[in-house]
Amino acid sequence: MNVSKITMAHGSGGRDSAELMRDIFGRHFANEVLDRLEDGAVLPPSPESLVVSTDSFVVTPIEFRGGDIGKLSVCGTVNDVLMMGAIPEYLTCGFILEEGLDIAVLDRIAMSMAAAAREADVLIVAGDTKVVEGRNNGLMINTTGIGTLRDRSAHPSAANARPGDVVIVSGNLGDHHACILSARMGIANNIGSDCAILCEMADSLLNNDIDVHVMRDVTRGGLGTVLNEIANASGQVVELSEQEIPVDAEVRDFCGIMGLDPLYMGNEGKLVAIVPQAQAERALDLMRAAEAGRHARAIGKVIGADVNVGRGSVVMRTKIGGTRRVDVLFGEGLPRIC
Amino acid sequence: MNVSKITMAHGSGGRDSAELMRDIFGRHFANEVLDRLEDGAVLPPSPESLVVSTDSFVVTPIEFRGGDIGKLSVCGTVNDVLMMGAIPEYLTCGFILEEGLDIAVLDRIAMSMAAAAREADVLIVAGDTKVVEGRNNGLMINTTGIGTLRDRSAHPSAANARPGDVVIVSGNLGDHHACILSARMGIANNIGSDCAILCEMADSLLNNDIDVHVMRDVTRGGLGTVLNEIANASGQVVELSEQEIPVDAEVRDFCGIMGLDPLYMGNEGKLVAIVPQAQAERALDLMRAAEAGRHARAIGKVIGADVNVGRGSVVMRTKIGGTRRVDVLFGEGLPRIC
Repeated sequence: MNVSKITMAHGSGGRDSAELMRDIFGRHFANEVLDRLEDGAVLPPSPESLVVSTDSFVVTPIEFRGGDIGKLSVCGTVNDVLMMGAIPEYLTCGFILEEGLDIAVLDRIAMSMAAAAREADVLIVAGDTKVVEGRNNGLMINTTGIGTLRDRSAHPSAANARPGDVVIVSGNLGDHHACILSARMGIANNIGSDCAILCEMADSLLNNDIDVHVMRDVTRGGLGTVLNEIANASGQVVELSEQEIPVDAEVRDFCGIMGLDPLYMGNEGKLVAIVPQAQAERALDLMRAAEAGRHARAIGKVIGADVNVGRGSVVMRTKIGGTRRVDVLFGEGLPRIC
Repeated sequence: MNVSKITMAHGSGGRDSAELMRDIFGRHFANEVLDRLEDGAVLPPSPESLVVSTDSFVVTPIEFRGGDIGKLSVCGTVNDVLMMGAIPEYLTCGFILEEGLDIAVLDRIAMSMAAAAREADVLIVAGDTKVVEGRNNGLMINTTGIGTLRDRSAHPSAANARPGDVVIVSGNLGDHHACILSARMGIANNIGSDCAILCEMADSLLNNDIDVHVMRDVTRGGLGTVLNEIANASGQVVELSEQEIPVDAEVRDFCGIMGLDPLYMGNEGKLVAIVPQAQAERALDLMRAAEAGRHARAIGKVIGADVNVGRGSVVMRTKIGGTRRVDVLFGEGLPRIC
């Protein structure tokens, strides 16, 4: 590239766009499908059902401890496809760049996307770049993921939680949210995003005869919101034990000072798995064997009903022996990060 | 909806996000795949190869004569999938909404997307919504399209132009670009965007034994840029006849005053088809029978070489009998519209 900043001309569809494609995206994402430089990609036939998911990423700052918007945009969509019971295979990337963005930053972000895509074993097969006037010299990324549905007799579903099932979360809650908030507020600490590809952990559960009733990633809206969706879809009550909810000590302190509840904070590398009680220990062992699941914990159980709340609810047994209702996130709730 | 404007809470992933999904997107886009409200969509197996294409839409104003950003976002991606030789089948939509956007406007845009999707016979199967702070109370939309490759022995390709072939453009150039510029500059005129689904015209060409060597939509970068890509990929020279280039009279006047060249202006409902000379008349008739192709014109031919330029170039025979080189768009060139 013969300039150091993104200009409006990089979104023109002409020579500067082609240069950006060749020198940045083409270089990092090179693969035989993308290299054809057509307006789209041709993918082989799929004898299995397909799963498709889309997500836009608008986080600020675009680089943070533990990741950047590029890594996030790959992890988020790969994990969504994975949670639908599929093996992620292809990604498309739509970039909306702000005029003035440092090309060196874009280069790092593209490199980070390429690394995450390699880890997840997905190919970036099609892309698009637009340039807009902007205030922050930042960028936004949409990724759409395509995977092939695993060949299984039963797939995990939000509607499959059954009384007696154990609720497992794959690690500490709130890291990503606390990391981004810290960066935005200029608070120096050691909190890093949990941004991670969950393929290894999901593969391990699904390929080892665990009868996973429910599997969902825990992102925007937090664990509280996800568990309410599951309780609602399954027509059950989810009962959590407050003392088992895993939160990193520094994040817990940060939340205490800020008045935040980790139950509603966004994560980018966590899943919740709901499994039959008899398989819970084995599932925990398998999850902990994966790097992204090393802090996995059983945090509660599914019960058919509760004297205090109707079906479709989430309740928390508190550390001091009480019970409280855990609702979905509503309104702003806490400072937004995406 | 109990509010009239988009708030940051609509992007929280919690209750307000769910309401927006139910009351706006769910209502307009309803179909059996989307209605499952999962994080992604499950699509049936595909015995044919798949084609996937992605595009982000950032046009301002978001509503204009002849369309809006919603219609544009469906037409653009559907046409890209179509031009790859596929039958468009599914779309995903990623919305980035600016805080303060009128929900009534969003509702109109979603309705317009739904209408375009019906016309193109594609299902909107997955979506995502983020809310960002913004200056214009606007929105940006990414669409990713998936189609199945047509079962043909030969597919149109930018590399297939052959000496003697006729170059046909499906209608007047520059309408979309001139419409958006007029709106942005507050100029009152009758110029409307050409924003259109090209399925009928492409189907007609491909299903009637026309040996279409090249088929490309003519969007950002304009006809000049697209023809250069084709000339380059095919290793041929494309020779245009200036007097045949179709431009609406009002657009021509507008371009004259503004100093714009329709050859580099963006279109949103045009294609260029390159066909063997013996089939050119029949191809023109088929294109003109489709609403979006009623002004189709043969505008030039493919020649193997030219005394003045090397292979991979585009030249124009001017009205006064001269010859000039037509280059790709570079730099800004003309006021940007996307």
